[in-house]
Amino acid sequence: MATAAPDETAAMRRALELAARGLGHTSPNPVVGCVVLDSEGRTAGEGWHQRAGGPHAEVHALRAAGERARGGTAVVTLEPCNHTGRTGPCAQALIDAGIARVVYAVADPDPTATGGAVTLAEAGVDVEGGLLADQAAAGNEAWLTAVLRHRPFVLWKYAATLDGRIAAADGSSRWISSPQSRADVHRLRAAADAVIVGSGTARADDPQLGARIAGLSDDEISQPLRVVVDSGARTVKAGARVLDGTAPTLVAVAEDADAAHLDGLAPLLRLPRAAGGRGLDIPALLRALYEREVRSVLLEGGPTLAGAFFAAHAVDKVVGYLAPVLLGAGPAALGDAGITTISQALRLDVTDTERLGPDLRITATPIRPALPEEN
Amino acid sequence: MATAAPDETAAMRRALELAARGLGHTSPNPVVGCVVLDSEGRTAGEGWHQRAGGPHAEVHALRAAGERARGGTAVVTLEPCNHTGRTGPCAQALIDAGIARVVYAVADPDPTATGGAVTLAEAGVDVEGGLLADQAAAGNEAWLTAVLRHRPFVLWKYAATLDGRIAAADGSSRWISSPQSRADVHRLRAAADAVIVGSGTARADDPQLGARIAGLSDDEISQPLRVVVDSGARTVKAGARVLDGTAPTLVAVAEDADAAHLDGLAPLLRLPRAAGGRGLDIPALLRALYEREVRSVLLEGGPTLAGAFFAAHAVDKVVGYLAPVLLGAGPAALGDAGITTISQALRLDVTDTERLGPDLRITATPIRPALPEEN
Repeated sequence: MATAAPDETAAMRRALELAARGLGHTSPNPVVGCVVLDSEGRTAGEGWHQRAGGPHAEVHALRAAGERARGGTAVVTLEPCNHTGRTGPCAQALIDAGIARVVYAVADPDPTATGGAVTLAEAGVDVEGGLLADQAAAGNEAWLTAVLRHRPFVLWKYAATLDGRIAAADGSSRWISSPQSRADVHRLRAAADAVIVGSGTARADDPQLGARIAGLSDDEISQPLRVVVDSGARTVKAGARVLDGTAPTLVAVAEDADAAHLDGLAPLLRLPRAAGGRGLDIPALLRALYEREVRSVLLEGGPTLAGAFFAAHAVDKVVGYLAPVLLGAGPAALGDAGITTISQALRLDVTDTERLGPDLRITATPIRPALPEEN
Repeated sequence: MATAAPDETAAMRRALELAARGLGHTSPNPVVGCVVLDSEGRTAGEGWHQRAGGPHAEVHALRAAGERARGGTAVVTLEPCNHTGRTGPCAQALIDAGIARVVYAVADPDPTATGGAVTLAEAGVDVEGGLLADQAAAGNEAWLTAVLRHRPFVLWKYAATLDGRIAAADGSSRWISSPQSRADVHRLRAAADAVIVGSGTARADDPQLGARIAGLSDDEISQPLRVVVDSGARTVKAGARVLDGTAPTLVAVAEDADAAHLDGLAPLLRLPRAAGGRGLDIPALLRALYEREVRSVLLEGGPTLAGAFFAAHAVDKVVGYLAPVLLGAGPAALGDAGITTISQALRLDVTDTERLGPDLRITATPIRPALPEEN
């Protein structure tokens, strides 16, 4: 295989930008961006996968390029698909358009779609994979994790003081974090397929859980599915803001809970209780959401539910908004996760820190065993 | 007054570096650095205040410059002193050496030493103040705070997980923070006149509280006074590492505590109990230390004592070592500070964030009323 030319690397960076525009809109599909270069290496067409069921990125880019695609290079963030789903296989579309070379970033691990690179090579197309693969994998981290683990990618978000509190002793918490941090959370919601809260948060805050982003209209924002984990079916009631009809809502209750009062109010997800613990079986919850095509989850708390997710090894990424505030009393950001001594501590890699107004946003990834335990 | 020339600004930066070498060695005096430029603007001599009782920075620099000081410029981080203490007044020494111009950063607020600028100007010396004043004030923050507040500068240091815990549920805490963070704490200890811990920390960790810095010999490190706040005189006992004789130790006990078992083991500081609360009267503790020429205190915890300091509005700076660790249970970094609702939250300005190995060090300053409440 040849090495990627500088214009191909630049095109891949552009394709990554294009791909990111699809975040929140493409599940259960990945986000994908594509740039078609003509035979002289000039940009002839661009495209991205805009929504599940719509054309793939390559098809958009080939349409934009028209005849200029012939003899050209397709630069694409994910290995072109090889299967006929709601749309035809992209590998064949690239061959039909006369593309001479395909440069992709990340191989497609989905067993139903993989094989595009082989099909292309067999048709005489020069194929190269791996260009900016790390960046592309990061851009598709939710989808890749979901494919590999057969459950949604879970991002736990919390906002706390420097001493780790999410509210004062009397429960008041508006506002600990800055407006900039709160706006950032709405960006996370819009990028997620589902937002999950526990009954404690639902009771204390009556959250609406919608995504609102300044400068974007309702049409431009993909509202996440709202999920309230209400094991005993005692918290969600008529009039709750989470039932306001602006987006679908699921109430997850225990199989044995009496949830008759929710009839007609919200669809139920009936799940087994956690073995030997309080609350619901977290892997079962995630499986049920995966079956509903949820590929990414924003876990917004509270501390009890977050502790249960950590105890189930079901958190893939942590985003913490640390406000320069001290309280000295009040609930902590994370509740019981089954850790009793320091050697069991959950350790993470900090991958990013950023100032958001007065706050500090910390992004970190749990350091996990080489093989996932949850499969 | 003329404006500082570029070579004077460069000399001031150098003087600030020199001043910092004195940190931890000069109390109750400030740290001061001085660069003498000859009449052509070339460096003729450098000096810094190395230890209380020793020559001031200006005297060191004038000695190094010799005859080249005549007609030259003295660049000094603090207004030259005007009083005869253990050494003669620097203003007079500069006049005697034939210095034509003095550029200083920060005015001396100490009523017993101030007036140097006036004395110099009256002798015909060209005097200018304020050059790099912010940096110089930061470099002398402990001493300036102590002079203004008549109590030592207090830096609260804590090391915690992302969820604000300082230990696991079973009390184990070795190690939450990284070796790099722990080495940084020793640097803070060496720069402080005194280190304070409460009885909870003394009991749980049996800390030695000495400063050890790789690459520096014992002679090069100024060991802080060790202070254990042991209100009931029930914690510090013979054999405690804090009594190992490597540095002086004070045990602060309540006036009514039975501390007979400490006779001959450690000097006592007998203090009133806090009004209406547990523990000792924090302002009284700080006054007692100030009277012993302590100008800077490193408060190492634990949470209860730190809460009492915050409740007394007696923390000037916070350095937090945040380890990328989650525990979900265990004691929080800060205990009761008298804050019950969010409107009373203590808010801070983050002035610095830095990675120390895997950890994040956050430096912050409490946002306080314009006039100090503790005077």
